[in-house]
Amino acid sequence: MIQVAVFGYGTVGSGVVQVIDDNNELISKRVGDQLNVKYILDLRDFPGDKNEAKVVHDVNVILDDPEVAIICETMGGVRPAYQFSKDALMKGKCVCTSNKELVAAHGPELLEVAKANNCSYLFEASVGGGIPIIRPMNTSLAPEHIDKIMGILNGTTNYMLTKMSREGASYDEVLKEAQALGYAERNPEADVEGHDAGRKIAILASLMTGKTVSYDDVYTEGITKITARDFEYAKKLGKSIKLLAITENTDAGVTAMVAPFMIGADHALNGVNDVFNAVYVTGNMVDDVMFYGRGAGKLPTASAVVSDVIECARNLGSTLPCIWTDEKVEVIDFKNKERKFFVRVAIDKRGDVLNQVGPITEIRVCDEEFAFVTSAMSEKVFEEKISKLNGVLSVIRVED
Amino acid sequence: MIQVAVFGYGTVGSGVVQVIDDNNELISKRVGDQLNVKYILDLRDFPGDKNEAKVVHDVNVILDDPEVAIICETMGGVRPAYQFSKDALMKGKCVCTSNKELVAAHGPELLEVAKANNCSYLFEASVGGGIPIIRPMNTSLAPEHIDKIMGILNGTTNYMLTKMSREGASYDEVLKEAQALGYAERNPEADVEGHDAGRKIAILASLMTGKTVSYDDVYTEGITKITARDFEYAKKLGKSIKLLAITENTDAGVTAMVAPFMIGADHALNGVNDVFNAVYVTGNMVDDVMFYGRGAGKLPTASAVVSDVIECARNLGSTLPCIWTDEKVEVIDFKNKERKFFVRVAIDKRGDVLNQVGPITEIRVCDEEFAFVTSAMSEKVFEEKISKLNGVLSVIRVED
Repeated sequence: MIQVAVFGYGTVGSGVVQVIDDNNELISKRVGDQLNVKYILDLRDFPGDKNEAKVVHDVNVILDDPEVAIICETMGGVRPAYQFSKDALMKGKCVCTSNKELVAAHGPELLEVAKANNCSYLFEASVGGGIPIIRPMNTSLAPEHIDKIMGILNGTTNYMLTKMSREGASYDEVLKEAQALGYAERNPEADVEGHDAGRKIAILASLMTGKTVSYDDVYTEGITKITARDFEYAKKLGKSIKLLAITENTDAGVTAMVAPFMIGADHALNGVNDVFNAVYVTGNMVDDVMFYGRGAGKLPTASAVVSDVIECARNLGSTLPCIWTDEKVEVIDFKNKERKFFVRVAIDKRGDVLNQVGPITEIRVCDEEFAFVTSAMSEKVFEEKISKLNGVLSVIRVED
Repeated sequence: MIQVAVFGYGTVGSGVVQVIDDNNELISKRVGDQLNVKYILDLRDFPGDKNEAKVVHDVNVILDDPEVAIICETMGGVRPAYQFSKDALMKGKCVCTSNKELVAAHGPELLEVAKANNCSYLFEASVGGGIPIIRPMNTSLAPEHIDKIMGILNGTTNYMLTKMSREGASYDEVLKEAQALGYAERNPEADVEGHDAGRKIAILASLMTGKTVSYDDVYTEGITKITARDFEYAKKLGKSIKLLAITENTDAGVTAMVAPFMIGADHALNGVNDVFNAVYVTGNMVDDVMFYGRGAGKLPTASAVVSDVIECARNLGSTLPCIWTDEKVEVIDFKNKERKFFVRVAIDKRGDVLNQVGPITEIRVCDEEFAFVTSAMSEKVFEEKISKLNGVLSVIRVED
């Protein structure tokens, strides 16, 4: 019997208990030993809950119990999760977490503590909910020099953009709907401004480089300026509009950004809709691979935590490999990157466009304005050109 | 230094050597020890090849060298690969293979031999080329009761169907083109009749159940009857036509089949085009996940083999978990499965359709015929209805 404790009996934590209980027979078979949730740590009591008797309020009850081999940290937030995780690892207990804030802030240190104590710190659920991505990065893609990662990493914004696309609704309308359904927070900033996706791409960029890409160095642009009109053009072009988190690792250096993009119809990310998320990885040998699934939700995220628990249970007494040191990566400006841009301009500025940009193919969906897609050029050159143009209504980067 | 030998210096084998050589520094860092290809086994000589000196013709030179810890078996075919693999495993050498015929025929036995000798038999590259799927099934999806797997598992047919869809070309035309480009064999039967995809879904179905789903029990229908006209309708319906390999694991039992399907525009498999492949897995906790990438090709497939080599190198002296016994799964008839069907009928049989099927929504792309999509019904019921109908031109199953 392998004893597990769950820190935090919220959405994900109660999901973890449910996955371990409901699929206990097959999980135990695959581990080769039975898994059992012995404790649940939470400040609250849960009278009437079937796991009421497992709830404890003092973390030391769990840390001092030598029977507990694996902790699921599903509390969220840096404090007190950081100290609890560190203390558990120092006692040789594996920690499996869904806590992206903590992983982004203290990942390398906690990996180091785990290594020193012959146990593991795993965080599959911290990026992409139920999508297997962290373990594939550490194992399946271990032969690769990863050149680029593009992710749709936030369920809320992808739900909103899909809805705007399908229904021609405005940003404000879909935000209200998403809030009513519980898909968006009352204060939606972390999602709609791209901060959540930024934290996740910082983690993936760190695994890509083996060093630390700081979240503060990720350029972030949200979806608040995207309009129903933009989607009219996107439809006409056969493209979709997605909030992409992108990191690249080229000879020039490492870039990291979050911004809305128009994506071509033939790109695999084009069809990632609703609350689904996906991570598109390009390696120098395997070329393109994509991992797709539910980016959030109780049971999908819990399943990712439990997959880590199973790996720990199969490897008790040793440390599962993950190369991520605290050496900081100097993130370079992405503005040298060449790409195409979608631009909307007021109809009376046609002449200016011809002078500044040259001949373009005009796209029309209404009388007051027109749009065009530029040829590939660096952001720097584009910004220079566009700064001299009056009547620009909207600019969206293009990824074909 | 960890010594590796490659059995078979063909496309995939030479790719394995290239991946290990070109990415040696980063691979060695991720393993924690240097990987080196010491031998290449092949009947041929390779004068002028930079690895000429590593080529040996006698397998025993390799089997008797205690320095060799890991074998990459990229020979293909059951004989002599089966005996060579078994002999290597019995000497405690790990074997990593891209050989789907051998895995489908002797997987459970070779896994058993590996276990008895504290080494591993891994076969990531045997299904889906560069797509990470076998390891995610064994690790990331270990908490799941897998209900269903749907795969686009054959690069040749997906290339052909994509081309037919985009260019309105006929089956014969695109087959000739695919043969000229080397994407299809001169004798294309294994691909176009679905046998290759059948072998791969048998492997995935076996991992899903932990027992053996025999390839002989997979119902197989190819793409040879798909016409340019079918694609005209598909386009009108916003659907694509794909060769799907499907296995389901329900209370009623396990089904396994390969057949062309019309797939709805919103399904993630809809956008899997050209030589890309994908595996769509539904678990009882994680819901839907999809793995996408190049289903064949020298370096993508080699990368999958090397990812296995890295796992072995990190775990020398132990056996990596994979539950697949030789207990045979009784595959049940899929004809009780309810689904929709796309049907084309000659224009003068309208009355018959109304009598046999009831009112339908007619789809027209030309004068001589019409088509419709049925409501969901079992294959049995559908076959009964359709057998009474004259003038049926084509039937394709629908997956929304």
